[in-house]
Amino acid sequence: MPKSTGHLLSKDSPIGVFDSGIGGLTVLKEIRRLLPCENLLYLGDTARVPYGTKSPEVVRRYSELNVRFLLEKKVKTIVVACNTASSLALDHLEDKFPDIPIMGVIKPVIRHLAFLDGVCRVGVIGTSATIRSNTYQKLIRDQKQIEVLSQACPLFVPFVEEGLLDHALTRQVVDYYLRGLKESAIDTLILACTHYPLLSDMIDEYFDHRIRIIDSAYYTAWELKKMLEHNQLLNPSSDAGREEFFVTDTVDTFKDTATRFFGRPLGKIEHI
Amino acid sequence: MPKSTGHLLSKDSPIGVFDSGIGGLTVLKEIRRLLPCENLLYLGDTARVPYGTKSPEVVRRYSELNVRFLLEKKVKTIVVACNTASSLALDHLEDKFPDIPIMGVIKPVIRHLAFLDGVCRVGVIGTSATIRSNTYQKLIRDQKQIEVLSQACPLFVPFVEEGLLDHALTRQVVDYYLRGLKESAIDTLILACTHYPLLSDMIDEYFDHRIRIIDSAYYTAWELKKMLEHNQLLNPSSDAGREEFFVTDTVDTFKDTATRFFGRPLGKIEHI
Repeated sequence: MPKSTGHLLSKDSPIGVFDSGIGGLTVLKEIRRLLPCENLLYLGDTARVPYGTKSPEVVRRYSELNVRFLLEKKVKTIVVACNTASSLALDHLEDKFPDIPIMGVIKPVIRHLAFLDGVCRVGVIGTSATIRSNTYQKLIRDQKQIEVLSQACPLFVPFVEEGLLDHALTRQVVDYYLRGLKESAIDTLILACTHYPLLSDMIDEYFDHRIRIIDSAYYTAWELKKMLEHNQLLNPSSDAGREEFFVTDTVDTFKDTATRFFGRPLGKIEHI
Repeated sequence: MPKSTGHLLSKDSPIGVFDSGIGGLTVLKEIRRLLPCENLLYLGDTARVPYGTKSPEVVRRYSELNVRFLLEKKVKTIVVACNTASSLALDHLEDKFPDIPIMGVIKPVIRHLAFLDGVCRVGVIGTSATIRSNTYQKLIRDQKQIEVLSQACPLFVPFVEEGLLDHALTRQVVDYYLRGLKESAIDTLILACTHYPLLSDMIDEYFDHRIRIIDSAYYTAWELKKMLEHNQLLNPSSDAGREEFFVTDTVDTFKDTATRFFGRPLGKIEHI
């Protein structure tokens, strides 16, 4: 995946992960699980969150700033742990920074889909920007004769950030957005937003446990591991890896909610 | 209100109005109604919206950038048409830019409250940042022996932006946030967010039309008019005033929703 050798990549350097805010922590959690000895560096662009309602131009500009920050921190690879940025900015980032491997959260899911049997009608749900970009829809259609239905769910992120993960109101918002997909009898649903895994149980219940729900965190972490192996970039240390967190807004506004996404309290968090 | 004469204020210069996004258009609409001959210049910081979930530091930084932009455009006065910025950044802006009159949307409401009889228990609803700042609560208590109850309603803005203005789901979110205030038998409710006037009818119905609902748009426009008169800054022209709109994200993401807030289609919109 690295396109040039101009950038010196060191095995014990951290893996850089960024998101518009806290959603990407669901991806970081899986990376930590599959790669326990890697040093991880997470950047949440909390001063400019959300990306999902912004234009492609703005999302590209912010994503570029995030990558520049991670490069200064000497990361060995970058994971764009945000569906909006992956769908709108990944090509731009790969062109702009050819010396460092950059992974998004979309292609790992699309490649996983190729291995699955019995996928006939796929639903894709995400932010307005992600759905409007048509990235998932095009990539799935390129690959398979699958019917793709998509639905923007702009209220899911505010509900998750408000912590209403098991609330009657949230169930009604789920019904409001997903009724059409349910009536269309999809067999597979892609959660194309890193916030949505926190609603995964509720969505699974809404579809009566009859559909396959795919979230990108595991597949992204899995492909990251393969890529590091392939490029001989795995950290040889057998010690538990370190984690460092950076946010562009103050730490307070991030800390509490972040714990819910990462599954445990975060270590050191710095405001940049 | 102007604190120095260093800045040359011209009567036919535009009035500058800014908000984090579209909410401030509810204020602009009232300003247009009360001051039909003034030239108006509106800046929506759509690339960084929302402010209501951000820290005071970040809101101050963005507000300062907005004021600098408006000053470059040679406005004669500035209205901070955003409750979050008014509560967190107004003092900072007044210190930083002493040569131009700057008005927020909070004090006009507080001064109006002083004229009202029969106000015993006031509810204040707004974004998390506005409510956390305690600005309204302190200002009201300073002035009158009134009991103040406050409630952050972080989901109201996303619901309004999603256009669910007359929807059963929104009614339930209204109930979710306002039930406590209803049970506490408030007599007056301050809508401390420029998005909330779009939910005003629904909220009025929820309280069985028994309480007084105060939104800042009218009182801000009214005080603005008085201030311009007092400082002999009213535009002497009897022609209909011009409007110019500027946004920090692309125009497309702003245009359609903006019409709902301003009550009619906007004229020229520029991306800066």
